[in-house]
Amino acid sequence: MRILGIDPGLRTLGWGVIESDGTRLRHVANGSCRSGEGELGQRLLSLHRQLSEICARFAPDEAAIEQTFVNRDGAGTLKLGQARGVALLVPAQAGLRIGEYAPNRVKKTVVGVGHADKAQILHMVRLQLPGCDPEGPDAADALAIAICHARYSAAPARTLREVRA
Amino acid sequence: MRILGIDPGLRTLGWGVIESDGTRLRHVANGSCRSGEGELGQRLLSLHRQLSEICARFAPDEAAIEQTFVNRDGAGTLKLGQARGVALLVPAQAGLRIGEYAPNRVKKTVVGVGHADKAQILHMVRLQLPGCDPEGPDAADALAIAICHARYSAAPARTLREVRA
Repeated sequence: MRILGIDPGLRTLGWGVIESDGTRLRHVANGSCRSGEGELGQRLLSLHRQLSEICARFAPDEAAIEQTFVNRDGAGTLKLGQARGVALLVPAQAGLRIGEYAPNRVKKTVVGVGHADKAQILHMVRLQLPGCDPEGPDAADALAIAICHARYSAAPARTLREVRA
Repeated sequence: MRILGIDPGLRTLGWGVIESDGTRLRHVANGSCRSGEGELGQRLLSLHRQLSEICARFAPDEAAIEQTFVNRDGAGTLKLGQARGVALLVPAQAGLRIGEYAPNRVKKTVVGVGHADKAQILHMVRLQLPGCDPEGPDAADALAIAICHARYSAAPARTLREVRA
């Protein structure tokens, strides 16, 4: 099964594609989509185009996205929400099943603890995907989300989505 | 000029299309897109399809969207943000210029005061768009946003967008 992991963000949206064969994982590709500095509509359009191209190019079977951390910064939550809406739309348009995972769940699954830092995530992503060199921290997070989905995808469907809107 | 007004929301997204001929306004159509109760990706997909159909059917020249009110309810802001991302994407995909207006600006422009209630907005929308019967409060809000854009569209471009991400 091929999985597209997405770490949503308006400025930088990380993505990573892996292959899962039961317990064995293999890295396929990773990178970041950047939306530039223009008007909001144009930035969202750019993210949609880039992510759609990635989806078409790598033809994943399923998708996984980080569950956005909601904090007191309303403006930041709104920006992230807008990018996340587009990030969810692309795999939905491709007919993919989408898993959502809280950041702590991703860390716990990939690193073993819920409060791992960026360096630990990068280390464990490299360890679990031999030969993989993530393009940046957002791409590493996206690969971690894809790994998390691979670990959970054998579990019953009701554990797959932790949060629904 | 034909304007598509959008009142974004995940559960219900209001829309309204008007024609503006300088100072004269004419109602074209209005309604609400509903996303149902399914998974988030499917709901966003449904909103995108419905709004894309409206955009294709009524062929607006420009779009206007309500600037989302950011409050302390982070989960609500996130939901609204996700719907707003899709609502902005559709006119951007159609190549339309998009104006963003704060709710108070819309009310002040359409009703004359910044804290008008739903009934006042409905009354003034009907008055300014003879023969128009909004399908619901979200559709009435969307028509009010379109009216606001019509009033501002003659103004310099830098006043058009009050807020950028």
